[in-house]
Amino acid sequence: MQRSGRVSEAVIRRLPKYYRYLKDMEKSGVQRISSKELSKRMGLTASQIRQDFNCFGGFGQQGYGYHVSDLCNEIRKILGLHKNYNVIIVGAGNVGQALSNYSGFTREGFNITAMFDANPRLIGMSIRGVPIYDIETMPEYIANNDIRIGVISTPGDQAQTIANQMVAGGIKSIWNFAPIDVKVPEDVAVENVHLSDSLYILSYKMNDLERQES
Amino acid sequence: MQRSGRVSEAVIRRLPKYYRYLKDMEKSGVQRISSKELSKRMGLTASQIRQDFNCFGGFGQQGYGYHVSDLCNEIRKILGLHKNYNVIIVGAGNVGQALSNYSGFTREGFNITAMFDANPRLIGMSIRGVPIYDIETMPEYIANNDIRIGVISTPGDQAQTIANQMVAGGIKSIWNFAPIDVKVPEDVAVENVHLSDSLYILSYKMNDLERQES
Repeated sequence: MQRSGRVSEAVIRRLPKYYRYLKDMEKSGVQRISSKELSKRMGLTASQIRQDFNCFGGFGQQGYGYHVSDLCNEIRKILGLHKNYNVIIVGAGNVGQALSNYSGFTREGFNITAMFDANPRLIGMSIRGVPIYDIETMPEYIANNDIRIGVISTPGDQAQTIANQMVAGGIKSIWNFAPIDVKVPEDVAVENVHLSDSLYILSYKMNDLERQES
Repeated sequence: MQRSGRVSEAVIRRLPKYYRYLKDMEKSGVQRISSKELSKRMGLTASQIRQDFNCFGGFGQQGYGYHVSDLCNEIRKILGLHKNYNVIIVGAGNVGQALSNYSGFTREGFNITAMFDANPRLIGMSIRGVPIYDIETMPEYIANNDIRIGVISTPGDQAQTIANQMVAGGIKSIWNFAPIDVKVPEDVAVENVHLSDSLYILSYKMNDLERQES
């Protein structure tokens, strides 16, 4: 797989969708697919798909379409999903628990090894085999357990402090669910997930459709 | 507030972020803010912000900046957050329960009135006062309770059927957390939330930063 320069954020954001659709097709036994058929299923244009794939050297479509499982594997590698990562979750409330309960992460190589919380009622419990430890012990735990990804599911006012501690401990990748945008140094990757943003966009769209009808 | 034609998806997707930052500033007592200062806080350019606001008629910055709470109210109205909406959640598993537990939705006018599930162990329970009903009774419930938004947090293989039932019942707005893209008619708004997409993008970025360093 070759890279032709920096890949744009928009292309990167479409990669997981390609991966999802290809995995589904692989599961249903589809062996080959043309870019036209793939574009129909995904709601993108065929030329868009070809352009996206060209950012990674093309994946050699040979007149009769892409080989689904090869393409799926290529995209898996580009996303880094062929490796394993140790993950901790800080904040063992509803969101943290829902994330630790989701078996799909383990399937893709994300192993949640521990959760952390400040609440004495939660410390010492475990969820699906994942222990909840005292938040005070997090820096030491990071230092000793090759943790690659830190998930933050605390209230907003604690999120930046937790992020700073994670970065100080050497974590290079933060998945943040707290309702603020956490700031990290340039050599650290961060994804801020704001669920309510998506609800507000839905509200906008619903009202926009009503305006068009009236 | 005036609209100058159709607003692009990219602008719409930035609106909740403006709203978040403005609400925080309002809470901290900030009364006025220049587009320069706002751009610094949000990591956007000042001209980007002015262009975005021009899509909605401008919000009259008068040389000395925007009035924070006025601007916040305008964006609240544009997003439709000045109204109330009845919401149901279908699928009372981890994600459904985490969503029903989140008090922020109620504060912005989204009232979760009921959850639905097929699991007899869950039916009859309630979570933070929200009752869990038998999924079989959903169509009747929708018909009688002015439900505006349907949340889907079921496994993927049930999501499209649930979406179809919601649409048949007159729901015009679907917030989908199941790991497939649900399809809806053109007059229905949908937001497909794929949490693992965001994790995969994080994985890509982390690996990309490592490649740059090596």
